[in-house]
Amino acid sequence: MQKNRKQYAIGVDFGGTFVKMALVTHQGQLVEREQFATRQAATQPAWIEAVAAATDRMLQKRGLRPSALAGVGVGVPGFVDFDRGFIHNLTNVPGWTAVPLAAKLQRRLKLPIFVDNDANLMALGEVAFGGGKNLRQAVFLTLGTGVGGGLVLDGKLYRGAFSMAGELGHISIERNGIVSPQGRGGLEQYIGNRRIVDYTMEQLATGRTTMLLQLCDGDRSQLTPELIARAAKQGDQLSLEIFDYVADCLATALASVTYLLQPEAFIIGGGVAQSGTILFTPLRRHLRARLSPYFARLIKVLPAKLGNDAGALGGAALALQSAP
Amino acid sequence: MQKNRKQYAIGVDFGGTFVKMALVTHQGQLVEREQFATRQAATQPAWIEAVAAATDRMLQKRGLRPSALAGVGVGVPGFVDFDRGFIHNLTNVPGWTAVPLAAKLQRRLKLPIFVDNDANLMALGEVAFGGGKNLRQAVFLTLGTGVGGGLVLDGKLYRGAFSMAGELGHISIERNGIVSPQGRGGLEQYIGNRRIVDYTMEQLATGRTTMLLQLCDGDRSQLTPELIARAAKQGDQLSLEIFDYVADCLATALASVTYLLQPEAFIIGGGVAQSGTILFTPLRRHLRARLSPYFARLIKVLPAKLGNDAGALGGAALALQSAP
Repeated sequence: MQKNRKQYAIGVDFGGTFVKMALVTHQGQLVEREQFATRQAATQPAWIEAVAAATDRMLQKRGLRPSALAGVGVGVPGFVDFDRGFIHNLTNVPGWTAVPLAAKLQRRLKLPIFVDNDANLMALGEVAFGGGKNLRQAVFLTLGTGVGGGLVLDGKLYRGAFSMAGELGHISIERNGIVSPQGRGGLEQYIGNRRIVDYTMEQLATGRTTMLLQLCDGDRSQLTPELIARAAKQGDQLSLEIFDYVADCLATALASVTYLLQPEAFIIGGGVAQSGTILFTPLRRHLRARLSPYFARLIKVLPAKLGNDAGALGGAALALQSAP
Repeated sequence: MQKNRKQYAIGVDFGGTFVKMALVTHQGQLVEREQFATRQAATQPAWIEAVAAATDRMLQKRGLRPSALAGVGVGVPGFVDFDRGFIHNLTNVPGWTAVPLAAKLQRRLKLPIFVDNDANLMALGEVAFGGGKNLRQAVFLTLGTGVGGGLVLDGKLYRGAFSMAGELGHISIERNGIVSPQGRGGLEQYIGNRRIVDYTMEQLATGRTTMLLQLCDGDRSQLTPELIARAAKQGDQLSLEIFDYVADCLATALASVTYLLQPEAFIIGGGVAQSGTILFTPLRRHLRARLSPYFARLIKVLPAKLGNDAGALGGAALALQSAP
């Protein structure tokens, strides 16, 4: 990242449950945090006031003036028009359809405002300050209820023709696979949290022996990917096979992305990725098996490093990169 | 394309059978052509001399000096290191492993030389002067014996971390699909010319009624995608179903690319694409069905326009774009 007169920026991670904010130095140090519950700022004006108040508090704590800030980068859970700082629609947050957020926030804060998709900013955060530091070509994935992603190409976020690129969860891994509103065989339909649990239920229904039933005290509704990862780490054969299956589904999509974009690395975050080697070891093996030696040799699969801070750090990185 | 003091460039399409060259204006007008048989210039020095001689002839015919040229762009059938103008290996042309072609050709021609993958230059040619004119984000595919591709992102060729991006033929459309040295379920294993014929043979083996057998005079070894397209255009039900299958395989890969990159358009060339509406109509229908409405509404599927000249025109476009 270039040095800059403006030594700080603020990142805002607008989640369905919490809005997390961070004051970040140009070197990626997170020096102050704020957060508020999304439903406590349920209207647009309330949200903007809450962000402004948190911004003021963070500046005051550090004894900084607003002029120290390169700007504010906001990541939102939905589709935006990046160039206009315009929110088309937020999937799980009511009241945020067709909102010119950058203009509104700029009017209040008198600072440069950037609005982007949350997974894009997580991608940028990891490349600027985290697991993909110094990479020029990196593809970020976050594995959770959904599967999201972001692309850093030639050192910059790539957003596509209409700011909607990077939807890695909808890459098809089966031409005649599971049908969803997004098409057929989309990756998310196989490795989204609930799908992993569904798949596990199917395996349990065949009567296989596993410690999973003990771990959930016989209550199958308590099954989660975390629980399955725990069993896998204790050597449970069925759970290991489930993670092998998840890894192979993921490797199928990542092989396609590798042939298409040849990034230097994939950076993988989110809940399921926290299973660590239980996921990463079979993932690297399956990906290698699905690539020709030339491609296999050159691709890396790295864990994300910024955890829940990735979005806010990415927002700050965007503001720092974009500042004049 | 920017105006330039250098009003011309030369494009070289290095094929396994012929080397095709073109003298091209900065507006994309192809004003002179040359070609020679690849096996008639079987050594590297002979090849370089043949290219130099053809360059001289084209300049002389137009009464131009070498100083009128922005440079020479060479497309080769294999992997290159673009930055170094270095050929790693050409798949079907012996004697071209580890060749610093740009340096060698520059020594002889005293002109800026650019060396790229042939499908990349076809992509650039179509975007600069052909079916994708003025697009900023376009994905090019060529359908033939193999399935190749090239990506134009934010107005420039995107080559990936090691100049190997754009291998659309290896995108997986079936996690447990056909095995090849490039992985499993690669698109090319379903819609490469020979695979289309193989699939047709399988259908014929079930005893289905079709005019195909008449068209090939009962000699199944004469079956080609062109013949199947001809039968489809005459309303042959089996042939229409085969093209529908090919279109759906292709749509599966294009849907994945759309979710990942959101280009403005796909530009599709090569032999099979010349079947026209027989391919494009079901392709557009299947692609739409495999995308959410937001994505479906914004993506175009366009035929390539430059035919066999795409590579040479793209080479010239690269030289014109890259000239200082």
